[in-house]
Amino acid sequence: MIKGIKIFPLKQISLEKGDVWHGLKKSDEGYKGFGEVYFSNVVPKQIKGWKKHLETTLNLVVLKGEIEFVFFDDRIDSETKGKFFSITASSTDKEKYIRICVFPGIWMAFRCISDDEALLMDVIDQPHSDKESLRKDLDEINYIW
Amino acid sequence: MIKGIKIFPLKQISLEKGDVWHGLKKSDEGYKGFGEVYFSNVVPKQIKGWKKHLETTLNLVVLKGEIEFVFFDDRIDSETKGKFFSITASSTDKEKYIRICVFPGIWMAFRCISDDEALLMDVIDQPHSDKESLRKDLDEINYIW
Repeated sequence: MIKGIKIFPLKQISLEKGDVWHGLKKSDEGYKGFGEVYFSNVVPKQIKGWKKHLETTLNLVVLKGEIEFVFFDDRIDSETKGKFFSITASSTDKEKYIRICVFPGIWMAFRCISDDEALLMDVIDQPHSDKESLRKDLDEINYIW
Repeated sequence: MIKGIKIFPLKQISLEKGDVWHGLKKSDEGYKGFGEVYFSNVVPKQIKGWKKHLETTLNLVVLKGEIEFVFFDDRIDSETKGKFFSITASSTDKEKYIRICVFPGIWMAFRCISDDEALLMDVIDQPHSDKESLRKDLDEINYIW
């Protein structure tokens, strides 16, 4: 596990007319304020990343399909420097219905591993800005997908 | 249209690896603060409702499938008292990808009209509480679905 990543199980409550799923409450650990909520679709087998946020805290919930996330820590002063951490999040497997909280400074990439397109929600603590993030091509960080 | 309902078109940005969809920003009209985000699935043809929130403002976005919403205004002092308002929101039709902002005091029910299960996101300005909402059976408000 990388310092700065936290995983929280979320509830899916079964109801006859359609389930209710929890997401994020302002009292939840890792909630740093509301700037924006947006959604990222991922085509099967495609990988989005790498991206590192310098200021923004992310709260990620997979709402459709299944996504494999990979995080990489290259922070000089981090006790988990050089480490990768991978986790699968899913809307269709109750055990894998989770919120992933990502603090600033960690590289992230994610791949759709479901047969159909996946949908990812991200609640961020400040409105989206390209100025506070860095990008690298997939092959610039050495990870075997 | 009922006073207290606002409709905002949202962007779906096409990208090769999967689209990015807008949701809600804190600077958006109708945003009253963040209490919680949760999700309601709806089985095809099923109707959820009626429900009226007394304090909570809702921000509704359909993220999967298509949902028909019906709102009813029975507020004594409202200039739209007695009126119904219906609108369809969809994730698959860019023209119908919208945010519906619902201020307190309005009855709401919604039906899944897509072939597959629909998924609705709701951002509310205070954490969920059963104490600030009223419910009625479907047949208690006279609407022909």
